[in-house]
Amino acid sequence: MPELLPRARQAHESVFSRMSRLAAQHGAVNLGQGFPAGAPPTFLLDAARRAVGTVDQYTPPAGLPALRDALGADLGVDGADVIVTAGATEALAALALSLYGLGEGGVPDEVLLIEPVFDVYLPQARLAGARPVTVPMTLGPGGWSLDLAALRAAVTPRTRAILLNSPFNPTGTVFSRAELLDIVEIARAHDLWLISDEVYDELYFGERPAALRTLAPERTFTVGSAGKRLEATGWRVGWVACPPGVAAGLTGMRQFMSFCSAAPLQAAVAGALPLARASGFYEELRSEYAGRRDLLAQGLRSLGATVYEPQGTYFLTAQRPGWQAEALVQAAGVALIPGEAFYADHPCPPGLLRAAFCKSREDIERALERLGRVEQTRPA
Amino acid sequence: MPELLPRARQAHESVFSRMSRLAAQHGAVNLGQGFPAGAPPTFLLDAARRAVGTVDQYTPPAGLPALRDALGADLGVDGADVIVTAGATEALAALALSLYGLGEGGVPDEVLLIEPVFDVYLPQARLAGARPVTVPMTLGPGGWSLDLAALRAAVTPRTRAILLNSPFNPTGTVFSRAELLDIVEIARAHDLWLISDEVYDELYFGERPAALRTLAPERTFTVGSAGKRLEATGWRVGWVACPPGVAAGLTGMRQFMSFCSAAPLQAAVAGALPLARASGFYEELRSEYAGRRDLLAQGLRSLGATVYEPQGTYFLTAQRPGWQAEALVQAAGVALIPGEAFYADHPCPPGLLRAAFCKSREDIERALERLGRVEQTRPA
Repeated sequence: MPELLPRARQAHESVFSRMSRLAAQHGAVNLGQGFPAGAPPTFLLDAARRAVGTVDQYTPPAGLPALRDALGADLGVDGADVIVTAGATEALAALALSLYGLGEGGVPDEVLLIEPVFDVYLPQARLAGARPVTVPMTLGPGGWSLDLAALRAAVTPRTRAILLNSPFNPTGTVFSRAELLDIVEIARAHDLWLISDEVYDELYFGERPAALRTLAPERTFTVGSAGKRLEATGWRVGWVACPPGVAAGLTGMRQFMSFCSAAPLQAAVAGALPLARASGFYEELRSEYAGRRDLLAQGLRSLGATVYEPQGTYFLTAQRPGWQAEALVQAAGVALIPGEAFYADHPCPPGLLRAAFCKSREDIERALERLGRVEQTRPA
Repeated sequence: MPELLPRARQAHESVFSRMSRLAAQHGAVNLGQGFPAGAPPTFLLDAARRAVGTVDQYTPPAGLPALRDALGADLGVDGADVIVTAGATEALAALALSLYGLGEGGVPDEVLLIEPVFDVYLPQARLAGARPVTVPMTLGPGGWSLDLAALRAAVTPRTRAILLNSPFNPTGTVFSRAELLDIVEIARAHDLWLISDEVYDELYFGERPAALRTLAPERTFTVGSAGKRLEATGWRVGWVACPPGVAAGLTGMRQFMSFCSAAPLQAAVAGALPLARASGFYEELRSEYAGRRDLLAQGLRSLGATVYEPQGTYFLTAQRPGWQAEALVQAAGVALIPGEAFYADHPCPPGLLRAAFCKSREDIERALERLGRVEQTRPA
């Protein structure tokens, strides 16, 4: 019998799917995979129920024109430069395949990533034929920080792009305008593309994060997600806002992947985006999540964990030597993501875990209670 | 400024999108792109309206368990061997990336395709790093036929797979059980994978087509589409039924592409599949489309075209020297797909066009009338 290629045989279940599966198996409270406990907002659901039966056939691969226009207005760019994708995951895959690959002489192009690294960036770069090169964040008593000197030093003649994520999953870091300007300077000096994964662009707890595209519009791709913004991670409506002149090529790539995104859900998101902005939905979401973040952070601290306060996303990182995600899901009935899942090349800080606070207050409280019980029964 | 890679810059708008765009631009009746005129069935729409607000978050990358089970039951396979994808397009892309690529020594693997060829097969094979090798169908007064000797002769030590489509877009051919057995024999002799694109599996006009997987279960991937079966091409719920033992690797590949399919639409399809089967929906669809096929075929014949009667799909091919799709969309206000769009390596039969009859009777009649008017004004 023939075999799958190594690149498929080596593709393993993501840590997020695996921990959700284990959570279900052990009846654990799932603070692992980043999907919200609540339902999407009513204005989105109503729009979808209206679109079903009305917008059911293929849309253009670049997206429903009404959605591209709504995204252009929302992001402050030309709708013609926006491409709708099947979630941010497909946006990132299409970018990987379009921006880097096996370079001249069969030597792989390189893409710079920041470690801890969102898992899918690595296999997508390899699938494209490129080599992902990770630059580690530094973790000190004050929390996570970007090592700009290390980033600068990692650039080689093979480097084609820097992939950033801000607000940053898993650390919750929001890169400052000054940091982004330094990154832009590196990109301009070496003529690199910038991919800015901003799926948590509306989930921040301090000042509104600077959008990288406003600092380097000529080379920045901004990736976004209706699933993250509107609490519907399963809808698979994402997007890329492109630098001028390249949307057509990226659309061509995207049409070979899933052709177009789910038509009725695109129509629903087109209607919902201006409503979300006008109704104060994002402000409410931030305020609600800030409360849950505090609940989870305080609870973990009271159990002896070191918690690194996130500036954005609905995740926090914490360290508690002795806690192991794989063991906790069974022993405590709480699913968290092991820090090691975000490290490919550098050592993971010991006992690092990612916990999601996009879950109900009840679930967060229940998880803390369960973790507390395990602590009490631990041999001294 | 950096540039997109050639593989993205060379990706052009598909002929189907382009003809739909031109149709809209010129107010043409669109018998081009293959999406149905009617709405999806009520039982599917109702299921979707119920699922929205209930099933909105990530599903496992392999699909909602209820949908995998429903597909297993429908296809007569184990649900654990079925993977849900973002339409059949993504299923085919994931298979290309998993089954063939740049082989040893940097020499591309080869995949055998039948020409006329559905456009997306070619770029997907190239994107995977492989070389698509086309084997032409023969066209005679009796219609289209498969050249098995040419297929056999096209196998080389580099061949990894044969990609078939039956019922076949654009010709409407349904391969006979005897033809499929010959193909299986070739695949077994050279240890090749078989990819069977059966998105039109319920759209046939004679006997039920043989499913290739029943003849070679150990090596056949069956690709299917809820969009084609249930008249909702924009929903992007497709699937692959895999040979035993390979679903995990293919799921791993698929999770890097769009992670999972639209969750509420997966739930709706899971509910609708048994209803479609039990209610006689497919029989009604076939009967309705048989009538529209006859309407279109007779109309085109009366205008002097040679029509090749399809045994399946909702397309027919016709030849009328002098008719050019690009010219007709403007001059006649009728959008058809030019035969050349399906030919990469061999000469296209002159004046070949693909016409879709998944459109309303009114539109088919209007298109015939418009084509007739152009014929009358043509200089003798």
